[in-house]
Amino acid sequence: MLTQVERIKNDIENLKEFNATPGKGLTRFSLTEEDRGARNYLKGELQKLDVEIYEDAAGSLVARREGTDKDAPVVMIGSHFDSVKNGGHFDGPAGVIMALEILRVMEENNVKTKYPIEFVAMIEEEGGRFGGGVFGSRAMTGQVDYQELLDFKDADGISMAQAFEDFGFDPTKIEEAKRDPEELKAFIELHIEQGPVLENEAKDVGIVDFIVGINQIRVKIEGRADHAGTTPMEMRKDALSSAAEVISEIKNFALKAGNGTVATVGTLAVKPGAANIVPAEVEFSVDIRSKKLNCIEEVRDQIDQALAAIKAEHAVDYSVQNMLMVEPVELSQEIFNTFKDESKKLGLNSKEMISGAGHDAMIMAAITDVGLIFVPSKDGRSHTPEEWTDYEDLQKGIELIYHTVLKVGEAE
Amino acid sequence: MLTQVERIKNDIENLKEFNATPGKGLTRFSLTEEDRGARNYLKGELQKLDVEIYEDAAGSLVARREGTDKDAPVVMIGSHFDSVKNGGHFDGPAGVIMALEILRVMEENNVKTKYPIEFVAMIEEEGGRFGGGVFGSRAMTGQVDYQELLDFKDADGISMAQAFEDFGFDPTKIEEAKRDPEELKAFIELHIEQGPVLENEAKDVGIVDFIVGINQIRVKIEGRADHAGTTPMEMRKDALSSAAEVISEIKNFALKAGNGTVATVGTLAVKPGAANIVPAEVEFSVDIRSKKLNCIEEVRDQIDQALAAIKAEHAVDYSVQNMLMVEPVELSQEIFNTFKDESKKLGLNSKEMISGAGHDAMIMAAITDVGLIFVPSKDGRSHTPEEWTDYEDLQKGIELIYHTVLKVGEAE
Repeated sequence: MLTQVERIKNDIENLKEFNATPGKGLTRFSLTEEDRGARNYLKGELQKLDVEIYEDAAGSLVARREGTDKDAPVVMIGSHFDSVKNGGHFDGPAGVIMALEILRVMEENNVKTKYPIEFVAMIEEEGGRFGGGVFGSRAMTGQVDYQELLDFKDADGISMAQAFEDFGFDPTKIEEAKRDPEELKAFIELHIEQGPVLENEAKDVGIVDFIVGINQIRVKIEGRADHAGTTPMEMRKDALSSAAEVISEIKNFALKAGNGTVATVGTLAVKPGAANIVPAEVEFSVDIRSKKLNCIEEVRDQIDQALAAIKAEHAVDYSVQNMLMVEPVELSQEIFNTFKDESKKLGLNSKEMISGAGHDAMIMAAITDVGLIFVPSKDGRSHTPEEWTDYEDLQKGIELIYHTVLKVGEAE
Repeated sequence: MLTQVERIKNDIENLKEFNATPGKGLTRFSLTEEDRGARNYLKGELQKLDVEIYEDAAGSLVARREGTDKDAPVVMIGSHFDSVKNGGHFDGPAGVIMALEILRVMEENNVKTKYPIEFVAMIEEEGGRFGGGVFGSRAMTGQVDYQELLDFKDADGISMAQAFEDFGFDPTKIEEAKRDPEELKAFIELHIEQGPVLENEAKDVGIVDFIVGINQIRVKIEGRADHAGTTPMEMRKDALSSAAEVISEIKNFALKAGNGTVATVGTLAVKPGAANIVPAEVEFSVDIRSKKLNCIEEVRDQIDQALAAIKAEHAVDYSVQNMLMVEPVELSQEIFNTFKDESKKLGLNSKEMISGAGHDAMIMAAITDVGLIFVPSKDGRSHTPEEWTDYEDLQKGIELIYHTVLKVGEAE
């Protein structure tokens, strides 16, 4: 392989140092000293290469390697380098290191591409400090304005605008981060899978065709509080017993919809919540994800029918609040096919996958062709200190993107 | 009827005044100024009668009406006059007023009984101030010692021993409250139903044969936290989805056991509790009540089987902690039959019932024959400001106990 696993390991281990919670996983919030440390490390590595380094108006670190056609649109490669609180060392940085290592290998091999290549390292993808998330890509696609920087505040009440200024950026210029779709040829990201499938099936890389759509709803079931000893079973309006009937079916609704559709009840609260009182009210969330909008709608329909059934049978009331609706995003079929071809040539064991989580790639798909690959996550863990990807696995993903970039960027 | 509804109404309304939360239901904690006010009102009414008034070592107010055989064991009638926080005006006081009104009617009618009759008004049945509960009857049955008075503290850290002293009682003498079973012929209580059955079936009174046994357990189900988007349905260990399968069946387990068995899941907590994370752990309570111990055991068995089934099917772990086990108590068949006979003579529409909640009667059954009747609760509500029993309904219950006491006390 042309990429070097020792360099990749070295980059990941160096970036680990810029961490607000050493020993308790990685906490690298945006526009903090940890952000600056990681940013300076990356700048240091990029300065060894023949690239133009700058920061865009949203604080993303960019390094541009010119193409033979200077006016051609750019092939962007990268990911984000912020983290959640007490997260892992691979979610984000793996994709940033990918871009850095590819620039190195291109230079070492005197590769010339028609299209310019841009390394990009974005911030606040997780929304760990200010909420919101996918900030760098939203800014690049023109979805962030100055008002948002004033509105979004961290836990200490510091606005994103203030944090920009303190860090040395000008928040009033945020809209300059927007990129003209004409300037872009593609955006290619590498990310850890954050799930168990690649490891379980002993695959080297996942090649993503769809980023799932997400529908989050909040269901409230209202029954009646009654004494748990004195109210016969037939006379109750038990909100929790009724909710349990619906929740126990949701797994089957997702399996029936197929297409990798998943549905999760992650939160549930009971009122009044005493061992000797029949529950009067239950509120729970349902998170439904699928590559097919109609599969999401099918699960929603079945939940609605199940709710109507418990209302009819147990005389409880219910309401459903729509919290989030994101449509599925189809990635570039052309880049997908190039990934598959190059993967075969490299002898990699690849798997077509959907992405169950949103990434900067999802946002960028609104303005350019997007490619995304996954590398294996040990035990499927992510957003925890145990998050891990073997360096050899990470290298395979980087090698695959390197060869794909040569194709997309039209290397001579 | 010999009892007078206006007097009953007047008593209830006067007792309402001694309340720490006027306008927000009744809060009358034990050994407070509200306790003293209610106690003084009752003493004032009792002083109009030919009775000996005293307070026992546990602070219960007692008024003894001599029988023709002064050495004969006593027929006790009454209930408690403390309340829960923001409770109602009938839970407890209804049974105390019953005893007061019966003494009045006996005197008005120059009734002479062979056995002495004792009015008793107990405190801290609810455990609202110091926890524990059924305090007066536990003391009377020798289940309270000085150490308990030192150990049990209210929300301000004041021990029950201190509260006894402040109120003017001697806590070191608590064990003198114990009554010799030889001194007692019977204990007869009237209580509001705290459930919807009598009102629903348009019955005047409920005649109780059993006080249910109670088994409270806490079930913990342990799965694995996974990303809600990236973990396929087949690879999850979802603690909540698994718990819902069990919880949705518990109602059927209770119905199948029959004998009025009830089972309630009143609390449930989910960890980590985020909309986009598959639940790793769920803890819920189950409260099972029945007049038959074997019915409680049957429901427990079925829950155990359901837990074993989800462990086998979904690879989750579980554990069950026993929180409370109280065996069912059978009340006096003789008093029960007398209630039925007298009820028929009075033209009352009665119903044989079990008591789904514990009462002082349950405790007293350990040392004497016990009778218990219920009067209707509007909408089945209790322990809330909306708690209500029509005065005419309360009167019917009191009239029934009056005639029963004449029989049990062997009126001339």
